[in-house]
Amino acid sequence: MLRWVLPEYIQDALPAEAAKLEDLRRRLLDDFRLNGYQLVAPPLLEYLESLLTGAGQDLQLKTLKLVDQLSGRLMGVRADITPQVARIDAHLLNRKGVARLCYCGSVAHAVPSSLTATREPLQLGAELYGHAGIEADAEVIRLLAEALQTAGVGTSRIDLGHVGIFKALAQTAGLLPQKEEALFDCLQSKDLPGLRELLVEAPEGVRAALLALPTLYGGVDVLARAREVLPRQPEIVAALDDLQELASRLAGLPISFDLADLRGYHYHSGVVFAAYGGNSPVALALGGRYDSVGRAFGRGRPATGFSLDLRELAAQVPDPVAAGAILAPAGGEAGLSATIAALRAGGENVMIELPGHEGTWREAGCDRRLVLRGGAWQVEPLQGE
Amino acid sequence: MLRWVLPEYIQDALPAEAAKLEDLRRRLLDDFRLNGYQLVAPPLLEYLESLLTGAGQDLQLKTLKLVDQLSGRLMGVRADITPQVARIDAHLLNRKGVARLCYCGSVAHAVPSSLTATREPLQLGAELYGHAGIEADAEVIRLLAEALQTAGVGTSRIDLGHVGIFKALAQTAGLLPQKEEALFDCLQSKDLPGLRELLVEAPEGVRAALLALPTLYGGVDVLARAREVLPRQPEIVAALDDLQELASRLAGLPISFDLADLRGYHYHSGVVFAAYGGNSPVALALGGRYDSVGRAFGRGRPATGFSLDLRELAAQVPDPVAAGAILAPAGGEAGLSATIAALRAGGENVMIELPGHEGTWREAGCDRRLVLRGGAWQVEPLQGE
Repeated sequence: MLRWVLPEYIQDALPAEAAKLEDLRRRLLDDFRLNGYQLVAPPLLEYLESLLTGAGQDLQLKTLKLVDQLSGRLMGVRADITPQVARIDAHLLNRKGVARLCYCGSVAHAVPSSLTATREPLQLGAELYGHAGIEADAEVIRLLAEALQTAGVGTSRIDLGHVGIFKALAQTAGLLPQKEEALFDCLQSKDLPGLRELLVEAPEGVRAALLALPTLYGGVDVLARAREVLPRQPEIVAALDDLQELASRLAGLPISFDLADLRGYHYHSGVVFAAYGGNSPVALALGGRYDSVGRAFGRGRPATGFSLDLRELAAQVPDPVAAGAILAPAGGEAGLSATIAALRAGGENVMIELPGHEGTWREAGCDRRLVLRGGAWQVEPLQGE
Repeated sequence: MLRWVLPEYIQDALPAEAAKLEDLRRRLLDDFRLNGYQLVAPPLLEYLESLLTGAGQDLQLKTLKLVDQLSGRLMGVRADITPQVARIDAHLLNRKGVARLCYCGSVAHAVPSSLTATREPLQLGAELYGHAGIEADAEVIRLLAEALQTAGVGTSRIDLGHVGIFKALAQTAGLLPQKEEALFDCLQSKDLPGLRELLVEAPEGVRAALLALPTLYGGVDVLARAREVLPRQPEIVAALDDLQELASRLAGLPISFDLADLRGYHYHSGVVFAAYGGNSPVALALGGRYDSVGRAFGRGRPATGFSLDLRELAAQVPDPVAAGAILAPAGGEAGLSATIAALRAGGENVMIELPGHEGTWREAGCDRRLVLRGGAWQVEPLQGE
């Protein structure tokens, strides 16, 4: 049993990656702040019923559970920060109007989401509470595109969907909750045989509509096709109108549609979206509307937002060329401390030499050294050490 | 059962506190970076035996345990980041020379350290590996003082101690490990009756020395008194010499001594220190030498460093005067986007107005608004809304 082996799907961030994560974290949170989003930091641990409020089965399976020694109650390590921020909005801030909030923190998953996923994503996101109109969805999607731009990754595609369509069809089909869950999973994996089997007893119209959903993806023509093949239920017409309005507000962004893509933790209630960028085959960010989550915390408020795993995003960003450090002598020579202070004030990393480590300073990241030449301190290239 | 109630000793950081924590985090990590300390980010979860390596009973009691569903083995939520960073130095970086590392992340404690402590400190620290000389201890203590200065709190006192003195005396007294632990606890709480009871059977010289330890605190004269009352064992003489040398290297800082103060997680092996500042009655930062911790990870390396709870530090820093946001209209008028972009580039938080929320924007943090006057966009005070 090697003590330095980490659990599967769990990693350290060593200096190069940690610096990249810190840089991205700062630039994205600054971007959110300049757009009026205030930072909050909910805790790692909460009582289980707070963490799982309004969420579906997959969050339940992802949440690590432990017993609180002080209360004897079950706590969870958060697997998702969004419901925590909804709690803060609903119960602690208690604002009448709009609240724009953002966050960045580690979450833990009992099992990885995929074979390439980490069990410890660094979740970063922004949420807009208190506004039901489509303006809010458009704002957070634009903010997400701006964040991916700021990260230097860019956005190659943003897929829009709407949970309302599926919900309306499932209701018409009169499915039991368990069967609705299975149907949801089949749609996610675009499993047509599975879908057909589940819908054997469903009325013909709704069966045809649900079987058509996985084909409704692509450009703006998807909405026209959807209006033809989906029943004219008011909820479905409203959802398609919402998507059309949203797409027109997002002119300039690479918008497409996928009406069977309903990802997220099952707490979504309206527009949902997935953003792609860089060389990643999977979505870099997911988001959508989740108007009902706050209700469990005493106040149902309109809510929309997105989140991403900063580690996954960082993997799309080339490593920055690390600025080498300057090795400085430890002695108390005249002017030395002032020179070091001036270099640091100019953003240089200055490492003080410790005795007995000749030949190892390049390994520690130094590429230059501070030397006294003719009475003046000068920075020179580090030679063979 | 109210879903919005957090477990005891666990808190959210709402916008004012979160902004303060983020600001301190950035300034301190920047300070460390300019001093040559590279950021690393170990995970929240590790196998239990990795987390508890070389640590004592108190870390064991503080660590929340859970079963890893993938391996069936016990994992812990980290209660301290220092041993994780020692693992990174020993096993992953594997440098021949000096490694300077720093970190900032949440840790979780099963039980709070005191009635005023949080169970979820935000631990920030810096560690110096690979150098056994006292220069390294002096460097990290100066770095700590600089960090407290950078935070705007300052340092009112830094207590120095040395674990070697206690270890040498305990060895001479021939105590069993369990009794040594109890003795350690009595010294921590300066419980003289308890000490006397534990030492009833100890040889006279060592008993007198251990009973004298709790009186050996104060200014530089403590070292002279210690040389008189403590036995002239080589380890004790060396420890006192170290402390004297260290104090002379830290000229200009408010150094004092406390030879019975051996705090930390029992993994310390040499000089230890505790820094006080602001109005806090408890130490804001703790640190010291822990040369043996890396051994369990395959390589015993000299190590010294410190850590602090950023939440506790933030409590000593006055809330910054929050810069109010500017409310901007949502419309597409000429020049509006460019004006907003320019304001944001200048560091202003600009919030886009959403319809139907008149009278609530001050609550959202706005104190000004952007208006079109005579064809030009101007920032004006927000009036009664």
